[in-house]
Amino acid sequence: MSDTTPIPTHWYNIVADLPVAPPPHLHPGTREPVQAADLAALFPSALIEQEVATDQYIEIPEPIREAYRTWRPAPLIRAREFEKALGTPARIYVKYEGVSPVGSHKTNTAVAQAYYNAQDGVKKITTETGAGQWGSALSFACAKFGIDLEVWQVRASYESKPYRRHLMETYGGTVHPSPSDLTESGRKMLAEFPDTPGSLGMAVTEAVEVAANDPDARYALGSVLNHVVLHQTVIGLEAVEQLRAAGEANADVVFGCAGGGSNLAGLAFPFIREVLHGKAQTRIIAAEPAACPSITKGEYRYDHGDVAGLTPLLKMHTLGQDFVPDPIHAGGLRYHGMAPLLSHTVELGYVTGQAIDQQDSFDAGVLFARTQGIVPAPESAHAIAAAAEYARGLTEPEVLVIGLSGHGMLDLPAYQAHIDGNLVSTA
Amino acid sequence: MSDTTPIPTHWYNIVADLPVAPPPHLHPGTREPVQAADLAALFPSALIEQEVATDQYIEIPEPIREAYRTWRPAPLIRAREFEKALGTPARIYVKYEGVSPVGSHKTNTAVAQAYYNAQDGVKKITTETGAGQWGSALSFACAKFGIDLEVWQVRASYESKPYRRHLMETYGGTVHPSPSDLTESGRKMLAEFPDTPGSLGMAVTEAVEVAANDPDARYALGSVLNHVVLHQTVIGLEAVEQLRAAGEANADVVFGCAGGGSNLAGLAFPFIREVLHGKAQTRIIAAEPAACPSITKGEYRYDHGDVAGLTPLLKMHTLGQDFVPDPIHAGGLRYHGMAPLLSHTVELGYVTGQAIDQQDSFDAGVLFARTQGIVPAPESAHAIAAAAEYARGLTEPEVLVIGLSGHGMLDLPAYQAHIDGNLVSTA
Repeated sequence: MSDTTPIPTHWYNIVADLPVAPPPHLHPGTREPVQAADLAALFPSALIEQEVATDQYIEIPEPIREAYRTWRPAPLIRAREFEKALGTPARIYVKYEGVSPVGSHKTNTAVAQAYYNAQDGVKKITTETGAGQWGSALSFACAKFGIDLEVWQVRASYESKPYRRHLMETYGGTVHPSPSDLTESGRKMLAEFPDTPGSLGMAVTEAVEVAANDPDARYALGSVLNHVVLHQTVIGLEAVEQLRAAGEANADVVFGCAGGGSNLAGLAFPFIREVLHGKAQTRIIAAEPAACPSITKGEYRYDHGDVAGLTPLLKMHTLGQDFVPDPIHAGGLRYHGMAPLLSHTVELGYVTGQAIDQQDSFDAGVLFARTQGIVPAPESAHAIAAAAEYARGLTEPEVLVIGLSGHGMLDLPAYQAHIDGNLVSTA
Repeated sequence: MSDTTPIPTHWYNIVADLPVAPPPHLHPGTREPVQAADLAALFPSALIEQEVATDQYIEIPEPIREAYRTWRPAPLIRAREFEKALGTPARIYVKYEGVSPVGSHKTNTAVAQAYYNAQDGVKKITTETGAGQWGSALSFACAKFGIDLEVWQVRASYESKPYRRHLMETYGGTVHPSPSDLTESGRKMLAEFPDTPGSLGMAVTEAVEVAANDPDARYALGSVLNHVVLHQTVIGLEAVEQLRAAGEANADVVFGCAGGGSNLAGLAFPFIREVLHGKAQTRIIAAEPAACPSITKGEYRYDHGDVAGLTPLLKMHTLGQDFVPDPIHAGGLRYHGMAPLLSHTVELGYVTGQAIDQQDSFDAGVLFARTQGIVPAPESAHAIAAAAEYARGLTEPEVLVIGLSGHGMLDLPAYQAHIDGNLVSTA
């Protein structure tokens, strides 16, 4: 994986290039466009600016680029053995984010968010996590910039998936099972449902409550919002260059998995930039789980990002803030909504959703592992499954790019369950 | 990690450059130098040739280089944050093998061994594994070259560390707990000790028995032997070039962990080449666990590689074939002997052993994780501990290289135990 691609100096903000401006976030009380002051208790100033920025490119501060250098540029790998196994004329490239210290793309925004918080003198960050990909990325980033981190992890995951909790604590993060007795909302929940396994929405509420009540603390979110999507564009900016360096003029189709949407948007937006500038005709496929199909089965409307309705209203594809998806192994895709910016590009016709059954995603993941060696994260396996189906149907060569958002080293019990025939269909 | 270092075209064979030839392996029956025919039932012809080769460089076949391209060149990372935390004037570089698909250096030889077996028409390979680093690397490699793999895994690890077993099975390998009822030696062991947790020596015996009795099968070993060490020299060959590309004339000290010895030898021998050719004065430190100190406390003499005494006699630093180390978490370092070629360079004065306590290794591993983001394998943490101690004592700048042989993603429970104060000292 010799690679002379430079690490991007700027993030790419697709808002500047889109023919129609995206709908603004609304204040949950007034339903008016949300103001910077409304967000100041939760986020540092630079991130609030980025949330509403209209510049085409935003410079990446040197300390963030220095952190990126540990694992970036992430490799773009030609998946020749996988192509052979599929019997396809396609040339398939995978953009592999699993080389990051925690094994996923989440570090791209975690490092940026921790840096901007440190710049604002923030001493503590609170966040929620489900299976723990985001929580471990932010633990790593907070250790790097000297910020304390408190993570509320959904109790079911806290108890059943200890490896990512160990990872968060190894980095120095403090992890609480949610609901906890450390917050008013948590105590209320525990009093009412003492045996609850918790939920992501509950964990958000606890993390937000603590940040809102501590002037030295802020809250961080790992997907959905515009500034998170912005940070993830390093994925696609590199991939566009790497594809050219590999001798390909353009990608015909780009496949990525979409839960909250930041991974796919980060990969896809620089490819859509080429389309918007008349340089390519690349199509984008958002592979989402059949168990949580916000693009293919949801509505495009304003909805809350959390269960309690405390966050701003976001215009997005949503299954409704109360939607509870089946407990699939791709925990990172179990979110009721889709990033507003990604939803907007779906509405404008640049991105198409495709629902993938859990069985098909694991079949594709195992085939990929046995041919290319990398065990994909169950989330990423959804993108691989969509690409595999498409590639098998081709009779002429096309160039496909798959976003491999992370490795599945901490998800191996799910692979074992699949191999042993113990996974259920989610179709 | 932009890197233009080419992947090596040849492995480096230090035998050609050493002032004294290494002592030959001896036949366990006759105690005469072992002949190629004696090894033909166990290894393919090319590996037997490499075991006794005296050429300075041996070409890496293109299919192996093609496989290497997925993750090589492995990055050489300047560990600036770690330097700061140590308060050292040293410039510290880590050569990071954890980017391989299975997360360790073991793939460098696994891919080569599977390729040469496939060239000889071998249909099945047998091997043993402890915690599973070697078994998972070989499972990956066998999937790549279309060879069936049967792994005998020490029963205690098979039962207590399921993640690497899941990884082996995800790649398509078949894993048996050892002792098993599938071999004569296993049945004998089970009859005598029905509740035995198994041992690496027992697992070797079962794997060798199956390969020796099946004309289509061969056996593979993940460390110790000359051909394994040879394959691992890609680590050091890249590191020497990468260090120059980073603007450093030479390394002052190279630190690597040593269990069977192939990881350290692979990193160190190309640096020793520079010493032998009068181009540098680099010193090499072999960091071994205090619980299994073959270099610092063992004897240099002929000994068997296995418990049963079936393998050739190897001249090496050994604690004796019956030595049973404490059950430390760095399972990859729990071997009674040291690679004969590495032992020979110790005797010649190019390499120095240093015993590291388990507590110190985890302290260093946690500090490294919190500063650089990468959670080191417990094995690699021994090298980090040795380097940290040295670096803290410096008053003038020196250039240090640490072999980071793998990541610790599947060893996180051990880190949690360390953080919780539940690890015992092994000093």
